[in-house]
Amino acid sequence: MVLEKVNTPDDVKKLSFEEMKALAGEMRELIIKKVNTTGGHMGPNLGIVEATIALHYVFNSPVDKIIYDVSHQCYPHKILTGRKEGFTNPDKYHVYTGYTAPEESEHDWFKIGHTSTSVSLACGVAKARDLKGEVGNTIALIGDGSLSGGEALEGLDNAGSYKGNIIVIVNDNDMSIAENHGGLYDNLKLLRNTDGKAECNFFKSLGFDYYYVNEGNNVEKLVEIFKKVKDADHPVLVHIRTLKGCGLEVAEQNKEAFHWILPGTLDEQKEPVEFVENYTSLTRQYILDKTKEDKTVIAVNAGTPGVFGFDYDFRNTLGKQYTDVGIAEEHAVAYSSALAKCGAKPIFAVMSSFIQRTYDQMSQDLCLNDSPITMLVYWGGISSADATHLCTFDIPLISNIPNMVYLAPTNKEEYLAMLDWSLNQTKHPVAIRVPNVPLVSTGMEDKTDYSILNKFKLVEKGDKVAIIGVGNFFELGKQVKDYIQEKLGIGATLINPCFMTGVDEELLENLKKDHKLVITLEDGELDGGFGEKITRFYGNSDMKVLNYGAKKEFTDRVSLDELYSRYRLTKEQIVEDIEKTL
Amino acid sequence: MVLEKVNTPDDVKKLSFEEMKALAGEMRELIIKKVNTTGGHMGPNLGIVEATIALHYVFNSPVDKIIYDVSHQCYPHKILTGRKEGFTNPDKYHVYTGYTAPEESEHDWFKIGHTSTSVSLACGVAKARDLKGEVGNTIALIGDGSLSGGEALEGLDNAGSYKGNIIVIVNDNDMSIAENHGGLYDNLKLLRNTDGKAECNFFKSLGFDYYYVNEGNNVEKLVEIFKKVKDADHPVLVHIRTLKGCGLEVAEQNKEAFHWILPGTLDEQKEPVEFVENYTSLTRQYILDKTKEDKTVIAVNAGTPGVFGFDYDFRNTLGKQYTDVGIAEEHAVAYSSALAKCGAKPIFAVMSSFIQRTYDQMSQDLCLNDSPITMLVYWGGISSADATHLCTFDIPLISNIPNMVYLAPTNKEEYLAMLDWSLNQTKHPVAIRVPNVPLVSTGMEDKTDYSILNKFKLVEKGDKVAIIGVGNFFELGKQVKDYIQEKLGIGATLINPCFMTGVDEELLENLKKDHKLVITLEDGELDGGFGEKITRFYGNSDMKVLNYGAKKEFTDRVSLDELYSRYRLTKEQIVEDIEKTL
Repeated sequence: MVLEKVNTPDDVKKLSFEEMKALAGEMRELIIKKVNTTGGHMGPNLGIVEATIALHYVFNSPVDKIIYDVSHQCYPHKILTGRKEGFTNPDKYHVYTGYTAPEESEHDWFKIGHTSTSVSLACGVAKARDLKGEVGNTIALIGDGSLSGGEALEGLDNAGSYKGNIIVIVNDNDMSIAENHGGLYDNLKLLRNTDGKAECNFFKSLGFDYYYVNEGNNVEKLVEIFKKVKDADHPVLVHIRTLKGCGLEVAEQNKEAFHWILPGTLDEQKEPVEFVENYTSLTRQYILDKTKEDKTVIAVNAGTPGVFGFDYDFRNTLGKQYTDVGIAEEHAVAYSSALAKCGAKPIFAVMSSFIQRTYDQMSQDLCLNDSPITMLVYWGGISSADATHLCTFDIPLISNIPNMVYLAPTNKEEYLAMLDWSLNQTKHPVAIRVPNVPLVSTGMEDKTDYSILNKFKLVEKGDKVAIIGVGNFFELGKQVKDYIQEKLGIGATLINPCFMTGVDEELLENLKKDHKLVITLEDGELDGGFGEKITRFYGNSDMKVLNYGAKKEFTDRVSLDELYSRYRLTKEQIVEDIEKTL
Repeated sequence: MVLEKVNTPDDVKKLSFEEMKALAGEMRELIIKKVNTTGGHMGPNLGIVEATIALHYVFNSPVDKIIYDVSHQCYPHKILTGRKEGFTNPDKYHVYTGYTAPEESEHDWFKIGHTSTSVSLACGVAKARDLKGEVGNTIALIGDGSLSGGEALEGLDNAGSYKGNIIVIVNDNDMSIAENHGGLYDNLKLLRNTDGKAECNFFKSLGFDYYYVNEGNNVEKLVEIFKKVKDADHPVLVHIRTLKGCGLEVAEQNKEAFHWILPGTLDEQKEPVEFVENYTSLTRQYILDKTKEDKTVIAVNAGTPGVFGFDYDFRNTLGKQYTDVGIAEEHAVAYSSALAKCGAKPIFAVMSSFIQRTYDQMSQDLCLNDSPITMLVYWGGISSADATHLCTFDIPLISNIPNMVYLAPTNKEEYLAMLDWSLNQTKHPVAIRVPNVPLVSTGMEDKTDYSILNKFKLVEKGDKVAIIGVGNFFELGKQVKDYIQEKLGIGATLINPCFMTGVDEELLENLKKDHKLVITLEDGELDGGFGEKITRFYGNSDMKVLNYGAKKEFTDRVSLDELYSRYRLTKEQIVEDIEKTL
């Protein structure tokens, strides 16, 4: 095993090319085994093994600073920078994060998980070096779809005119998690097909000194070019062609499916699990039906279609009624706004964590123009995810923008009714938080008229205590209601607000008559969220209000149980608080 | 006068080239007179007169749809689309906005004022046309610095691969409000210098069929190319070289200063007004001093340096300790975060309205990495501006991001102390809301230790009523205190919270002893803002709270007096509410 003698980047520098080749094979085996056990990013890491070895062979980390984009392709880097036990020892599989993490190693610079950040960050790293009169190379490793994000493009534009050392390595695996979209990727293809020689060159047009490596999974070729560009006194871009999933045939063949896998994906297939309807499958079918009925309905997403269940069948069936804009959320919002303004009916699907990339487009392009799009926000809620992919912040982010209507359905029928209403109304942008919990069905059609904005539903009228359970947490609201009855003998009122963008003043006013306490339950950050609007309403009255939700903090792979308990989100804790307050 | 017979685009189509040339002269005269009277965008509009005439001569608006970027260069378009009285009749000078406005005309498609939006919007307009089986050209007019924004780049990438008609016109006046920055602008220069013939072509690399017009202020040349590209069945880009300020010599010579002018700028110079120190001049001097003392201090902005008082002298003096990244706020935040992470001390200056373009970079690149940058937010507050440039939303936007420290100084000495503290601490990203009010000086050095986060200042201890006056509204707080004394005979408590990102639990707890009511005053949107944090704190207590600030709405050129009265922000209204509540 070559890996036995490799613990730090310095050890890599002592290896022969033969040894490095063997090392690549060993690292691949470890990555495959580890990722299949824990789940994680498979394809991106298998593709970048050789480039990582070559980087550490040629450059001198941490004096030379390597900045990973998205950083989901940093597993090989972790293996070579003192963290290999996270891959060799199954007991340590969960010790290290799946992203770069400065607290783990001096070879990591930023905690990053969203795409398209590396080049801008590298510009700052290079500038700090030059201000302080230090030396060393600044290297940004970008690719795998990240190039099309606005921040990456702004960064490339600035990096290309920098007067000093910046080396950008573009990992071109011909994928953007799903397939590529946009003219830029046609240029990458042209460059691949001409061995980098085409005159029409996106990177050169931005000022970069450009190099192409056709064999991006060949350590020797990579080392040759990296040596050539090392210590350059100007912006250099090295375009390397790699194979996503390299070394694992099924991943090479199914690049999108093997971008990120669940634990056990490579294991022998068990009995197929019985299909259980969920909000994702429901949405998928809804869009299939509506696009068939109405040629102006169009589904839009910005990369990661798989997350929304937009599989190949779905995309092929929709044809021209489907647009994946690539990783470009800003564009997706403006594009959807214009579609709606001109009479089409866009349904834009986006993850809570990634909607963060487009606040100004929601404010200016969309809400200021009051374009009636339907935006579906997936995965919104308190989560046990990595700090880089939290979905806790979408309520404060979205619901304080004027004109936006942000809905929180609590069951299947309500969700479908909200979708129908949104698709057919022409007054406002509507966002719907797709429930992040098992599907609940009432079995009864929801005939609510959602055009009466901010009209809450009084689900059960009681007295003394009123519970406002928002979206995902409506079920918790029911549990709390039952537990109040059991522990305090109070028949509490239960409210489903439906809307997160405003308050039902009439209903809240009426509660004053026979209630002393209102509690709000929301699956997201409390600061700037929904509950505070309720509390503000009651500020000048005798009504007491308790707001439940997440604290303003970045959490990192903390279990939901622990978070719920930390935020006092169990029925026992809540009823304890109620008892104290009454 | 040719203009007498021109009321609609159809009238333009009947003109000869000679007449169009005369028309351009007449329009210029009107624009110069009007803008010098009301203030507004001078250079951009003078530069685009001929292109606007040519567009309406060749294309058939509104069937062909012209989408303006930034839209501050739409004055000639307004003159030709039924709104010329807004330029010919001084009594009507204020009838039309300075931006495109669909409610004014069927020839306007979006209400837009931030840069970089047109291409993405055009993609949606084109796609809606094609989904609905309609015909017509979709034209995006971009330029004047807008190209470097992430949204524009995402849009160009997507537009370049569209399978249908999209025409992008790049108005290249060699400026980005201030001078250009970034590799892209070197490519524009190369294209200008080669009459558009250079093979290395940014736009071609993204898939566009490319045309160059060297004489972008020559109607005949423009008409020739526009006719050629009309009805193209694929993405076309027309690069036109125009002269910013064309026809007004002083504007041609001083492009940055004449981008936007105050009323009367062209009038005979009056006596120079006496210099009065304000927060902008104070900041400018502070940065000059600090960059001189410490070579790692660096000022950063994303375009519009003039807004911050970063004039030519300032930029030249700072030299390498100054970076204008161009219009690219996302990059600016990531760049600053990396600078700070590597030991430099960036001071990033940004307008409240434009910080909206970078929420995710603040969350991911900056706050998740807890990089100790100093961010100065200018112009934050309720404003009488156009709906496109409101600065009302920065408190909800910034202050709900974990790890961020957002400070609101209330006088000169406090501001300087906060700046010093921020620059020398290494723990958190710090944003400071530069006061948007006349400078107040206490004459006494502020020795507060701001490292004790969320520690409010108890300025005057009273009882019954406590007033928390945030930043700009601290002075209003003082007035309210005096008026309470006068009207209700109550000696109220006055608090300066300093921090908008958290609450001082100890101080708030203590108020419960001898206070019945707390009022919060903030110069910004109430929803998701600072006051709600206070209200939430008191939710389970007998303390009443009244929150004052702006309603969640887009306002459009509404006077401050009217807004303050609407939001009950006068001392009389507030004391009336207090009397009712007590």
